[in-house]
Amino acid sequence: MDVDIDTTHSQVVSITLFVAVLCLCLVIGHLLNENRWVNESITAIIIGCVVGTIILCVSKWKSSRFLRFDEQLFFIYLLPPIIFNAGFQVKKKHFFQNFFPIMLFGVTGVFISTSIVAAGCRLLFPKIGLKGLTVSEYLSLGTIFSSTDTVCTLQVLHQDETPLLYSLVFGEGVVNDATSVVLFNAVQKINANTLGGKAALDIFLDFLYLFSTSTILGVTAGLLTSYILRGLGFGRHSSVREIALMILIAYLSYMLAELFELSGILTVFFAGVLMSHYAWHNVTESSRITTRHTFAAMSFIAETFIFLYVGMDALDYEQWRMSMLSFWASLGLYSTVMVSILVGRAAFVFPLAIIANYMHRGGDASSKITAKHQVVIWWAGLMRGAVSVALAFKQFTLSGVTMDPIDATMITTTIVVVLFSTIVFGFLTKPLISYLLPPNTSNIDRARSLKEDMTLPLLSFEESASENLSRAKENISMLIERPVHTIHSYWRRFDDTYMRPIFGGPHSTALP
Amino acid sequence: MDVDIDTTHSQVVSITLFVAVLCLCLVIGHLLNENRWVNESITAIIIGCVVGTIILCVSKWKSSRFLRFDEQLFFIYLLPPIIFNAGFQVKKKHFFQNFFPIMLFGVTGVFISTSIVAAGCRLLFPKIGLKGLTVSEYLSLGTIFSSTDTVCTLQVLHQDETPLLYSLVFGEGVVNDATSVVLFNAVQKINANTLGGKAALDIFLDFLYLFSTSTILGVTAGLLTSYILRGLGFGRHSSVREIALMILIAYLSYMLAELFELSGILTVFFAGVLMSHYAWHNVTESSRITTRHTFAAMSFIAETFIFLYVGMDALDYEQWRMSMLSFWASLGLYSTVMVSILVGRAAFVFPLAIIANYMHRGGDASSKITAKHQVVIWWAGLMRGAVSVALAFKQFTLSGVTMDPIDATMITTTIVVVLFSTIVFGFLTKPLISYLLPPNTSNIDRARSLKEDMTLPLLSFEESASENLSRAKENISMLIERPVHTIHSYWRRFDDTYMRPIFGGPHSTALP
Repeated sequence: MDVDIDTTHSQVVSITLFVAVLCLCLVIGHLLNENRWVNESITAIIIGCVVGTIILCVSKWKSSRFLRFDEQLFFIYLLPPIIFNAGFQVKKKHFFQNFFPIMLFGVTGVFISTSIVAAGCRLLFPKIGLKGLTVSEYLSLGTIFSSTDTVCTLQVLHQDETPLLYSLVFGEGVVNDATSVVLFNAVQKINANTLGGKAALDIFLDFLYLFSTSTILGVTAGLLTSYILRGLGFGRHSSVREIALMILIAYLSYMLAELFELSGILTVFFAGVLMSHYAWHNVTESSRITTRHTFAAMSFIAETFIFLYVGMDALDYEQWRMSMLSFWASLGLYSTVMVSILVGRAAFVFPLAIIANYMHRGGDASSKITAKHQVVIWWAGLMRGAVSVALAFKQFTLSGVTMDPIDATMITTTIVVVLFSTIVFGFLTKPLISYLLPPNTSNIDRARSLKEDMTLPLLSFEESASENLSRAKENISMLIERPVHTIHSYWRRFDDTYMRPIFGGPHSTALP
Repeated sequence: MDVDIDTTHSQVVSITLFVAVLCLCLVIGHLLNENRWVNESITAIIIGCVVGTIILCVSKWKSSRFLRFDEQLFFIYLLPPIIFNAGFQVKKKHFFQNFFPIMLFGVTGVFISTSIVAAGCRLLFPKIGLKGLTVSEYLSLGTIFSSTDTVCTLQVLHQDETPLLYSLVFGEGVVNDATSVVLFNAVQKINANTLGGKAALDIFLDFLYLFSTSTILGVTAGLLTSYILRGLGFGRHSSVREIALMILIAYLSYMLAELFELSGILTVFFAGVLMSHYAWHNVTESSRITTRHTFAAMSFIAETFIFLYVGMDALDYEQWRMSMLSFWASLGLYSTVMVSILVGRAAFVFPLAIIANYMHRGGDASSKITAKHQVVIWWAGLMRGAVSVALAFKQFTLSGVTMDPIDATMITTTIVVVLFSTIVFGFLTKPLISYLLPPNTSNIDRARSLKEDMTLPLLSFEESASENLSRAKENISMLIERPVHTIHSYWRRFDDTYMRPIFGGPHSTALP
């Protein structure tokens, strides 16, 4: 392994080995697919660990990886396709139907969880013997350990059997990613060692600013793409240009957001949502099939890449040697973080579910979040993933390198929490959900084909369009009684009358 | 433009601007598409020049580009998708039917052209006042200016009207790229200042070794993918994995070839050919549509990226200042190279066409390369493109930077030749071909739908399969009389009997 002789050559070696391991992951992941206990993430992490061990042996305890973890690589190249695909593939019908509870869990939840994790660490870390972290660093730790990874749970849930639960878990996962990154960036700006009401208000206002501007940018990018594809009739010549344009504008919106220090995640998510709602209807049939699968494939490769990387990085010898705590103290550290995560999540899922049920009281029974569903939502958000690792590297290293023992300890803690939660909680997810929601008995009556979802409007309901419109006209008391539904129907009228004629998409009156 | 303050920030700025300009190129390219005189390459180069000028003004004559030209970027990330797509989309029927003339032009032609260009430069450069180049550098110049760019001509030719001509130009383009890169690498190893028969033999043997091993590696990668996709039944679960696997194994084969210092271009080309011949038949319907369009879109983005880059790089002020020759001497230099290219290409196209016609003498009249076709083939290969620029940067700079006046002169010469040939010859291509081959009169009788091409075997003929087989059995005199046809029919029997049952694809007896 003459990796150090020549930069160019070592780069080629790294890429070759990494791509080879990715292929291996793909094949093994496919073979293990029958076994629902083991998901892609766990496979990739374990293969990463195995490969890391081999490299560690071959390189005589010098290194366990080909590429240094670079959070730039993660934020510039790997995250955008994953989030864009999430926005593009999201079942818009259910996502927007449950928009209110999703936002409650995804936004408010992160605030609550961050506070509790930060407070827990602030309280217990000094007792274990780890001192010297600033308030800002504790808050960063809070956001780092508040970003969830719901992939594992989503692989077990069935969209057709439990549509409400699925859309809540999926939606929260996406919003949570964005919120925690935005909040992380807002927290970064706090320099003082104390935190008063003024600072808390600043964080909140900063958050609101980032959230709204990022969303507007993403929506603009999505509408612009739709308009160009519709107005200039790209499909007449080639679907290649259509596909290239969608990918490039989505990526451009992400990079613009990063450039203006907004949240690229939110931007590219909304760009994805709007492209699938409008632009997707303006392209040729083959472009529709291609974009769906291509975006999914890009996202899949990026995800596998990240988990593989986390697995390899777990064995980085230098980091472990640098972290200074004893075995028991380290164990105390990991337990503190894990317990904070469990408590922090419980502290918002159950109360917020009650609020969501209250707001939806006018809706039908199926939109109520039952106690069992609440437990599943709580569990689904316990896994920690790539975003946590990337944020930890951003906070505690300089381009993947750290020389400070405390920083090294924080990195190893993050990796242990990610590995433990993904593997242990991941393995337990399947039995837990089978126990709570026995298949084919719950909600099977609500199951229906979702194939028509892509052609349905952004905010369709169980009711037909005309029914909706007449109901919306009734009176203003509606808005108080069934606030969520009423806002939806106003939006839908607006979409039909003004947006679709300009940006594309089928007219909903043509639908059953 | 505070690009220099922070590496991370400047990286984000560069990528954002570059993606924005790429989007612009796409939209303008689409709007100009009606005008067949202006093709994608010309559009991208001109936009690159304009953007370069703007940056030059904004940065007050310091720089004309966002990213330094990195031939690593080109060879590791941009070239593989272009060549893989060429292999994947090649009309295999015509490509292999005309395999012999394509190889004559693509391989032998490069050798002849390289010798003539190198000799021309060796003879005339010292007279203009440019001294100090070694024999190895003259030979490198020969290979640099022997790699053609046939995109422009292919956009004008109509595959249905002149299938033979189209497949010759397309096929030569691909083989030429590979040959010139392989030959360039072989020439690099020559260190002596003189060139004897021994050295020439070494180059040739090295070339043969690189050519055969690279091909074998590519074929192996293609067959492996087909076998995995067929044997493990990936499609049962998701077409996402199928697509990801095809992309990753193709890229892996390219990187492996680079790692073993073979020709990645040849490897990935043959991987593409074999994947579309076997693997493509083992995947789901949506994967088939997706792979075709995705590979084309990736190739399209990479190509636009390169031409945009060449356009921007043309205005790099530093390079121009560094090159030391007077205006008239520079003009002499450019003329020398251009004339060498014209003569070097004429010197092999016309003689080799006669040989090709002789070899095909048993075939029908439509497979004869007429004089007009010869002129078109000669013209199609006059444009120089991205491969020339990348090779020039590899030879004459160190990671895109040069301090030597002679090297800087060689870089500017390459850029001038690429710009001049692409823009001037590019503009003239359409009128020339309209004059030589008036539309809808030539060969229209041969025009037929090529939609079934993907389902046809690798080496199908005008004749039906059974006819072929019976003819192949006739006797050995056939091999002498119609050598190309006979080899084809033997291969086809082999393909049907042994390859397709293992690696996938429809059985040809099921075809009409």
